[in-house]
Amino acid sequence: MGTLDKERTTTGWAAKDPSGILSPYTYTLRNTGPEDVFIKVICCGICHTDLHQIKNELGMSKYPMVPGHEVVGDVMEVGSDVTKFKVGDRVGVGCIVGCCKQCSPCKSNIEQYCNKKIWSYNDVYTDGKPTQGGFAGAMVVDQMFVVKIPDGMDPEQAGPLLCAGLTAYSPLRHFGYNRSGVRGAILGLGGVGHMGAKIAKAMGHHVTVISSSDKKREEAMNHIGADAYLVSSDTEGMNAAADSLDYIIDTVPVFHPLEPYLNLLKIDGKLILTGVISTPLQFISSVLMLGRKTITGTFVGSMEETEDMLAFCKEKGLTSMIEVVKMDYVNKAMERLEKNDVRYRFVVDVAGSKLD
Amino acid sequence: MGTLDKERTTTGWAAKDPSGILSPYTYTLRNTGPEDVFIKVICCGICHTDLHQIKNELGMSKYPMVPGHEVVGDVMEVGSDVTKFKVGDRVGVGCIVGCCKQCSPCKSNIEQYCNKKIWSYNDVYTDGKPTQGGFAGAMVVDQMFVVKIPDGMDPEQAGPLLCAGLTAYSPLRHFGYNRSGVRGAILGLGGVGHMGAKIAKAMGHHVTVISSSDKKREEAMNHIGADAYLVSSDTEGMNAAADSLDYIIDTVPVFHPLEPYLNLLKIDGKLILTGVISTPLQFISSVLMLGRKTITGTFVGSMEETEDMLAFCKEKGLTSMIEVVKMDYVNKAMERLEKNDVRYRFVVDVAGSKLD
Repeated sequence: MGTLDKERTTTGWAAKDPSGILSPYTYTLRNTGPEDVFIKVICCGICHTDLHQIKNELGMSKYPMVPGHEVVGDVMEVGSDVTKFKVGDRVGVGCIVGCCKQCSPCKSNIEQYCNKKIWSYNDVYTDGKPTQGGFAGAMVVDQMFVVKIPDGMDPEQAGPLLCAGLTAYSPLRHFGYNRSGVRGAILGLGGVGHMGAKIAKAMGHHVTVISSSDKKREEAMNHIGADAYLVSSDTEGMNAAADSLDYIIDTVPVFHPLEPYLNLLKIDGKLILTGVISTPLQFISSVLMLGRKTITGTFVGSMEETEDMLAFCKEKGLTSMIEVVKMDYVNKAMERLEKNDVRYRFVVDVAGSKLD
Repeated sequence: MGTLDKERTTTGWAAKDPSGILSPYTYTLRNTGPEDVFIKVICCGICHTDLHQIKNELGMSKYPMVPGHEVVGDVMEVGSDVTKFKVGDRVGVGCIVGCCKQCSPCKSNIEQYCNKKIWSYNDVYTDGKPTQGGFAGAMVVDQMFVVKIPDGMDPEQAGPLLCAGLTAYSPLRHFGYNRSGVRGAILGLGGVGHMGAKIAKAMGHHVTVISSSDKKREEAMNHIGADAYLVSSDTEGMNAAADSLDYIIDTVPVFHPLEPYLNLLKIDGKLILTGVISTPLQFISSVLMLGRKTITGTFVGSMEETEDMLAFCKEKGLTSMIEVVKMDYVNKAMERLEKNDVRYRFVVDVAGSKLD
């Protein structure tokens, strides 16, 4: 416990350029400051945003970049002012590791909307050093952005909840859908989508999964527990479902037309975007106006929501469907993720991998 | 009182083709059914949607078409079951003259969102005949879609309230902004915009007018009473106003980029579209997601909101800024409206015009 006097290093897997190929990279970690928690990484989920970032598809990538923001690990050391955690705690870290703590969103406990938030990687920390993510042996993180993993939850299960699970949970809670009697849909059955469908079902919703093909129908209906399945190109089915939904959680991270989905919403229904998309989206204004419909978007969730979500998933016994891989498979995993060839989330077994 | 036994005619000014030129046109009016009110038109406002419709810019125009949906008139005859009105009442008619009365929106008193609503013109009534609007000597309208004009309100003042005023009032009320302490903006200082600014001020808001040029600054600040004025091309001014607004009422009826305005919104802020636009609008998803911002749209308002809005305008002494013209000026007025050359609403003095 306490701070160390000399710099220490860790080894992670970093993209070195926009090719997005990850390879070993050793860098220094800051000493454990008074508010910091030093974490040994156990595992880390792979999110579609990681793909965007390592390939500079959002136009703001800096290299070398160690991605990973669904991090589960064990506390190895805590700073002198850390009260929330002790050595040996199983903890998680998500997309954000810093915020200004002064602005209106920060004061309202929705620090994910702070304009000065610091991303877990591909950002610059308050000490001027690049932030690096969870595809690495260790991280040092401000205790505010560390969350306790509920006792008995598998680390590989917990990882994807920290971004994918939270991304689906936050809008459902925020927009008042955390109740039964709601009809919702999940557009896109990927990492966020499959957790969204499970969380929505656990909230008591009638859940439709909307996908671009029929391939995932059996899985959505029989394994994830969806109530209905719609193929977006099936005009007849889409028309039959018009005006029937309170919300759609749109998890598709690439360009797609919005009208077909807006048409599915009831009056006052909400299309909630959760996927980062690098090209502009389009819609016809009358589709919104003639049903007082809403297009909105949310960005992961707050630390408070993270705690709630983990407790909710623990209480309901929700598990994510994952494929656990070693670090030397990460480039292949990224390739497969790009082709949507994973059901539904890769998790890298970091502690069980050779990193250098 | 009572129904007539033979068909009667009225003369209005109709577009005969997509040139949009209006000229006299005589047509039959249905007999006054049990629920109907027979109205002699006094005056009728000109809305930008009229322009879209007479020129078939929304692709669904049928000719001959008598436009006009900001109609004020006097009740000349009422059907046997009409209880709300009596002969001699000063009344108004807006955009809608029919709905199914069965669906969820109808039962929730938001009949403007009924999928089977019948438009005041360019639609087909339950009797199979075309509906024709208020640029005519008379109309026959179901009492449900007729509203009493408050005593002492000028008919020319009341006209623009029935679409423009309502279009601004409805979202402010619906989204909970009918209270003080709110910071809002009106994008586009036209018919809807100038009423929106006045209504928002009367609700106690801090009101910014956003316009494409500096031309209307003096008028917005000194006559309409806005608190601030922003020119959309003034990058510095727009940046300085970032993250400052609870809502923007977007009244612009032509394509415009949305990001500059989304940037002005606070977390959870709403961009509310009220202008019918024939081309798709675009936005970058991250602008919504990183501020949990909303794009929504509303369509005029309900009859209940119309009554509230008229009472509100009467109580607050709100007046619209209008230019009253005769019917033989209507084609010139349409031309000027297209060039945004009116401050801020044309009203046709129908009763004082030679119609045939």
